[in-house]
Amino acid sequence: MAGERIYLYDTTLRDGAQTQGVDFGVSDKLALAQALDQLGIDYVEAGWPGANATDDALFAAPPALAHARLVAFGMTRRHGRSAANDPGLAAVVNAGAAVVTLVGKAWDFQVETALGVGLDDNLAMIRDSVAFAATRVPEVMFDAEHFFDGYRANPDYALACVQAGLDAGARWLVLCDTNGGTLPDEIAATVAKVAARIPGDRLGIHCHNDSDTAVAGSLAAVRAGVRQVQGTVNGLGERCGNTNLISVIANLVLKLGFDTGIDSDGLKRLTHVSRLLDERLNRTAAANAPFVGASAFAHKGGLHVAAVAKDPRTYEHVPPEAVGNRRAVVVSDQAGRANLVARFRELDLEIDPRAPALGRLVELVKEREAKGYAYDGAAASFELLARRTLGAVPDYFELISFRVLDERRDDAGPQPITLSEATMKLRVRGQTIATVAEGKGPVDALAKALHGALAGVFANLADMRLVDYKVRIITPEHGTGAVVRAMIESADAQGRRWSTVGVSANVIAASYDAMHDAVTYKLFRDGVRV
Amino acid sequence: MAGERIYLYDTTLRDGAQTQGVDFGVSDKLALAQALDQLGIDYVEAGWPGANATDDALFAAPPALAHARLVAFGMTRRHGRSAANDPGLAAVVNAGAAVVTLVGKAWDFQVETALGVGLDDNLAMIRDSVAFAATRVPEVMFDAEHFFDGYRANPDYALACVQAGLDAGARWLVLCDTNGGTLPDEIAATVAKVAARIPGDRLGIHCHNDSDTAVAGSLAAVRAGVRQVQGTVNGLGERCGNTNLISVIANLVLKLGFDTGIDSDGLKRLTHVSRLLDERLNRTAAANAPFVGASAFAHKGGLHVAAVAKDPRTYEHVPPEAVGNRRAVVVSDQAGRANLVARFRELDLEIDPRAPALGRLVELVKEREAKGYAYDGAAASFELLARRTLGAVPDYFELISFRVLDERRDDAGPQPITLSEATMKLRVRGQTIATVAEGKGPVDALAKALHGALAGVFANLADMRLVDYKVRIITPEHGTGAVVRAMIESADAQGRRWSTVGVSANVIAASYDAMHDAVTYKLFRDGVRV
Repeated sequence: MAGERIYLYDTTLRDGAQTQGVDFGVSDKLALAQALDQLGIDYVEAGWPGANATDDALFAAPPALAHARLVAFGMTRRHGRSAANDPGLAAVVNAGAAVVTLVGKAWDFQVETALGVGLDDNLAMIRDSVAFAATRVPEVMFDAEHFFDGYRANPDYALACVQAGLDAGARWLVLCDTNGGTLPDEIAATVAKVAARIPGDRLGIHCHNDSDTAVAGSLAAVRAGVRQVQGTVNGLGERCGNTNLISVIANLVLKLGFDTGIDSDGLKRLTHVSRLLDERLNRTAAANAPFVGASAFAHKGGLHVAAVAKDPRTYEHVPPEAVGNRRAVVVSDQAGRANLVARFRELDLEIDPRAPALGRLVELVKEREAKGYAYDGAAASFELLARRTLGAVPDYFELISFRVLDERRDDAGPQPITLSEATMKLRVRGQTIATVAEGKGPVDALAKALHGALAGVFANLADMRLVDYKVRIITPEHGTGAVVRAMIESADAQGRRWSTVGVSANVIAASYDAMHDAVTYKLFRDGVRV
Repeated sequence: MAGERIYLYDTTLRDGAQTQGVDFGVSDKLALAQALDQLGIDYVEAGWPGANATDDALFAAPPALAHARLVAFGMTRRHGRSAANDPGLAAVVNAGAAVVTLVGKAWDFQVETALGVGLDDNLAMIRDSVAFAATRVPEVMFDAEHFFDGYRANPDYALACVQAGLDAGARWLVLCDTNGGTLPDEIAATVAKVAARIPGDRLGIHCHNDSDTAVAGSLAAVRAGVRQVQGTVNGLGERCGNTNLISVIANLVLKLGFDTGIDSDGLKRLTHVSRLLDERLNRTAAANAPFVGASAFAHKGGLHVAAVAKDPRTYEHVPPEAVGNRRAVVVSDQAGRANLVARFRELDLEIDPRAPALGRLVELVKEREAKGYAYDGAAASFELLARRTLGAVPDYFELISFRVLDERRDDAGPQPITLSEATMKLRVRGQTIATVAEGKGPVDALAKALHGALAGVFANLADMRLVDYKVRIITPEHGTGAVVRAMIESADAQGRRWSTVGVSANVIAASYDAMHDAVTYKLFRDGVRV
């Protein structure tokens, strides 16, 4: 089987768009279709012509694709209409796409209960629709919805549905596990039975992740004979998502040695394509995503780090660079010198592993971590700490004092009234600057006061914004008197993102320290002089 | 195979704690161990005695478990030491746990490259350590690290490692896919070969999700003969996480018909346990999590909703209520009601499922959850909300107003000076009481002011203390202006613990609301009259 060609079919832009809260615009669809094309995907299903304005606009001015074939998705004709007289079907076959995929039901229970149609009528709907589309476009596929549930309930009928699509001229018959409930072994056994009647190079698989086994189910189908896999980037899709095509590709190529049409340069784009989708959706990328997540090759324990330094195969199942990802060495309380030296290399800081300053930094990191600092998620604060210890980072500004007042009155009306006001004094370039600001809460007021004080001095701070703010309690046994850790993520117009940390028994003071690092990092990175 | 007993081993508190950014406190570990016990898990691995202060504190005062056995984890003895003279091993076997799991290497490459030890020496380390532990505790397991990579490279040696554990008296031999790179088919084939020599009811499986197939890999191992599955709640774990035990349990019971020792009531706790972990970690629960995610049974399209209304099996692979989840598109509000009635039963509140007040409460819970309230980890606030809606909870005290002042001076000496002072006015039993208090931070000052005001009126508050306090940001996209959720865990001298929640854009106001519920709950539970 290794070396055989497996065709890849991406449905991020159609089935992925069914996800709760996901709403692609035309420009998102264009950007993603092009990225999928560059990756080397065979089929890019871009939408359902006639179903909504976005998809109509997309097919009216389709993306220029170098390799991939653009697919228009639709449904078989309605009961009681001829294929030629069904406006929904007409919109799909006339959309200008070279490939049309039509979905129809393959489970007797669905046909009779959900659709309220006779079993023979459903077969005729499949046959007529596929045959009609085949006269209009070069390539037609039939998606057999609920195929595995259908096969379990009535194998002869499920097979008859697929056979109807084949007889009517479909290039591919795609076996769909629409409800996501079929486990890999059953998928493999069922596909093997189908492949005994219909050649595997005419069969595709379309899984959903409701059982947490969609990737394995798709690989099981390939082992049993199918030669097309459908899925979405990052497993986007309604409920628990579709098959994660990123994981399928990496496994097919790197583990099983199949030919997916994606070469080693394409494979290196997997991480980029995964993150591009999250950026388009304005979502935080899942750090634990297999192959492409920021933590997928993160090593925390000192023992692991030392072993990976000796030979990466000790703790890495594939080389991170093969999928365009990279090794992340995490600084934690087990921080040894090996961790720190590896971290420095990532920051382009070359340092002799035996340098005395390194020993001081190891001690400093340990001491700070014992106080509650955490540098796993606060790389910018770590970098500042390291550079301050090893070289020099300017003190751009110094706090003289701040005062924050929070007030709540429950007796002034039907809703409580709250007020937060911060006053701040800073020393900047020899001057003393005092500001006052109101906010939604004490930290918001303080952030506004800080930026108000610095905005006039450092113009480049104008494009900096706060994108995440987290607080956690380090010593919960001390209750409200506990030490808290504030973490801040910032971003700027150049697309950089950085995280900083502050620790104190006072949440406001901890937040101030994280803000201080965030602003200092921005000024330092931009090369600002004191 | 269906009906056979599969043993469940949870390692959320040990291997899950290796996750980047995860840092369990003792109170987190206690709460999770108890939730896992109530779920019906067989083995709860709680930590590594001797490795850190948290785990030492946990084993010094272990959780009371009704069903589960508490497991202490550790490593085989070091090279060059006898088992009886290895302080690391001593800490583990003397921790007081009924079960000890020892990890050792089973891959020749790891032994020689990472460990730098001879192959026979490694076998002796396994044999000696397991035999030593078996003289000290009733049950010992051997985790064969890197077993599948080891078997691929040198099957005889990998088997010899497992055999050494067996011969030395280990009850279970656990085959670990430490790097997560082995696909399910290879796991099944390898396990089948091992099971030809060692009975399957002595074998366990421990997978990681680096290939996005950990759940399927674990199920494949069960099919091939193992009778113990290790994993973590929500698949927590370093890199891409461990096997998601939630998905494994649901598949084993609902799809494959195995006996996991978890009855149908236990199964209904899966959603609760999953969300409890996220709340403890201050994380947003993954909406697309199989079985337990908020979107796992969400139906977006009108067609799907109509079909589900006709018969849920059309688009649902299992009934959501079987795993304690609910349909997100409420076809009727039956699902919501059934859920609440089940929760009431847990609170010993008997209520007619058709009572009109129940409908109001369903709406109120939805509305509050949309604002950011979370009740999976704040049972006391939920109970107060329910009892207020259905019956009557007295208003023991009313806030008139509070004012909190935070000040920090960095120019007054070598260390910054911080001050937090709260003034508060309350109405209690017709009187107006005003207090002032200082604290380590604003919330601490406020808590002290509140307790100062109430101490003279309600003597039973003297034995109440705050044991945990957490803050999380609900709308991180709003930066420091985000809405925050404060959760407070309280305890009293009778050994009760209860959790409450407050939500506001102002962290101090959110904390006050959680404190208000915490005190009200204590007074109500103690039967205090207004």
